[in-house]
Amino acid sequence: MFSSDFQAEILRRSAKIQAGMRVVGADAALIHTNANLYYTSGRVFSGYTYIPVEGEPHYFVRRPVGLKGETVHYIHKPEQISALLTELGLPQPHCVALEWDAAHSDYMRLAALFPEAKVVNASVVMRGARAVKTEYELAQLRESAVKHAEVYHRIESVYRDGMTDIELQIEIERLLRLHGNLGLFRINGASMEIFMGNVLCGDNADTPTPYDFAMGGAGMDCSIPVGANGTLMRPGMAVMVDMCGNFTGYMTDMTRVYSIGDLPEKAVEAHRCSIEIHRELSRMGKPGVAAADLYHRAVEMAREAGFDDYFMGHNQKAGFIGHGVGIEVNEAPVLAPRSKEVLVENQVIALEPKFVIPHVGAVGIEDTYVVTPDGLQAITSAPVDIAQLF
Amino acid sequence: MFSSDFQAEILRRSAKIQAGMRVVGADAALIHTNANLYYTSGRVFSGYTYIPVEGEPHYFVRRPVGLKGETVHYIHKPEQISALLTELGLPQPHCVALEWDAAHSDYMRLAALFPEAKVVNASVVMRGARAVKTEYELAQLRESAVKHAEVYHRIESVYRDGMTDIELQIEIERLLRLHGNLGLFRINGASMEIFMGNVLCGDNADTPTPYDFAMGGAGMDCSIPVGANGTLMRPGMAVMVDMCGNFTGYMTDMTRVYSIGDLPEKAVEAHRCSIEIHRELSRMGKPGVAAADLYHRAVEMAREAGFDDYFMGHNQKAGFIGHGVGIEVNEAPVLAPRSKEVLVENQVIALEPKFVIPHVGAVGIEDTYVVTPDGLQAITSAPVDIAQLF
Repeated sequence: MFSSDFQAEILRRSAKIQAGMRVVGADAALIHTNANLYYTSGRVFSGYTYIPVEGEPHYFVRRPVGLKGETVHYIHKPEQISALLTELGLPQPHCVALEWDAAHSDYMRLAALFPEAKVVNASVVMRGARAVKTEYELAQLRESAVKHAEVYHRIESVYRDGMTDIELQIEIERLLRLHGNLGLFRINGASMEIFMGNVLCGDNADTPTPYDFAMGGAGMDCSIPVGANGTLMRPGMAVMVDMCGNFTGYMTDMTRVYSIGDLPEKAVEAHRCSIEIHRELSRMGKPGVAAADLYHRAVEMAREAGFDDYFMGHNQKAGFIGHGVGIEVNEAPVLAPRSKEVLVENQVIALEPKFVIPHVGAVGIEDTYVVTPDGLQAITSAPVDIAQLF
Repeated sequence: MFSSDFQAEILRRSAKIQAGMRVVGADAALIHTNANLYYTSGRVFSGYTYIPVEGEPHYFVRRPVGLKGETVHYIHKPEQISALLTELGLPQPHCVALEWDAAHSDYMRLAALFPEAKVVNASVVMRGARAVKTEYELAQLRESAVKHAEVYHRIESVYRDGMTDIELQIEIERLLRLHGNLGLFRINGASMEIFMGNVLCGDNADTPTPYDFAMGGAGMDCSIPVGANGTLMRPGMAVMVDMCGNFTGYMTDMTRVYSIGDLPEKAVEAHRCSIEIHRELSRMGKPGVAAADLYHRAVEMAREAGFDDYFMGHNQKAGFIGHGVGIEVNEAPVLAPRSKEVLVENQVIALEPKFVIPHVGAVGIEDTYVVTPDGLQAITSAPVDIAQLF
């Protein structure tokens, strides 16, 4: 351990990981992706967390120099781990869990450390353990949520007439950073890239992107084709702000909509429909409820309101209406039609029923919630109505 | 192809990839990481570039909807690719190159598409092809370099007395973004994470990080422990600015040093030594020169100047003095003692001989160069001396 006052928290997390390891038959897990190193140790380092199915984790560290602790062991290369386990009196694993989400080259190298062992997928185990947050993690998420909302309260103060979407986004980025936002937008998997979030204005919201995000945007360059594209914000346009909430290493997700002048009634109605869906799903979202049921109820409400053509995109639609958040922005569970997941107390979920209205832009809100026995409890808290920018 | 006027450029790149494929015996490569999709198509999309060892690439696209071109084929899942190859009159590969730097789970899925085929490492092939830039790519890098330098010229204008390092960094981030910086800091491999670069002030430069970066910094949080840590910038401190140069999808790398008041003579001398190393390596760095020789010459010059204790870090040292840049910030070649690479014309390399002087901070400059028959030609151009901030 790098910090003894964090030990109890680490053991709570380890217990969840070890429970998942038992399900897949692993007697050890060897972890090395940054998000999972952070989860299993409380900090990012270069090296490996080794979690036996019983007992406390050990840390095999390459960098930085100077970390202390009885379970901290410095190495130059992972090939030293097997011998170190023996020195520590730990058995060689018969079945080791490695992260299949990590690079294939790393997988090959680490699997070769234990040539006799069966290898199972640690990414699935870690995803399951991380989905249900500890009290400590909930406090981190609540802290991010408060700061996230605080910045959104100030968005109107940085708007100036004649701005483009990207100019407004840059001022919001600065506000976020000055309020302690770490900037880094952690996404599981390498296929989705985003900078600090998106400001989408007018028809740019209807431009399809390569990424599995709820909303679109052409972006400023083909190398990262998502989000603001330099659209001049003009009267009658909706401006959707969906920016990064990473203030603590734990990310909240939050979207609010602003308007330049008045919006057409259809857009205002669709926005109200989003708020209604939030109310309904908050009430429904108790432990034991199927994630897919929340998805279907949202789709049903959008259809009943006559907005199914616009729900979760128009030219290209997203296949989910919500997702877990935590160290990464796309954690379990996923609220999608084929999701087999069931809500569990202390999961943290972002709901984002949104609509793209042609010639107006994107409307609808996103909030982050904790799953409680009484339903979903919002932790991002700010006015939900469309705010007019002047 | 997504754009016919880009076709000649794509064919030039494909020819380099195909030459690399022949070396490893691959008759096809199947590519899906964003940096390599961008390289092989000119844009990021969700899907796969399929490169036969002869002929033009084909694009199997999942998202976004609406891409056009004779070689663009929409798919729902990669399992459709094998049958589509047959429809296109292309043979099934006997030896397919897949990206070993990509997730193991993706590797397993893609390898199963061609159960009879041998699999070799496409990441190595792509790294080799991308190391030597085309004229088009050099123009992209020069464009990034000009904007990068333009922003550095304005850094003095955003400094205010009593600022912390992170406050200065946030203002530089905003300047970069307003000048068209895309924000995204693309790094090959998942182990190194950074936001938009680093501003390092005083002794924080000597705090070791987990990442294989030249300089340190505690960072603002254990979840991303690198860079600015909120140090108040006070007289006698060096402030090193090493921020992201991604203005075009191609990243330049550039570092300059500022001082609060005067710096001790030792720091000024070490900074001069860095400039001398740049001059010497620029002269030496011609096609055919071993990357390791450049490293050793830099180390030798630092030692002769009496600064070996401080060269490339003090508490923790980096093992290289330069690296290729392009779509990602850590491309080939690497200028390190055990590097087997030899410089090739039109490689683009960042040199960063830097020093950490205890109680002062980090000094030395970083510039991005093109390898030419006459030596290294700098493309990031700005005054090299330490600039005093007021």
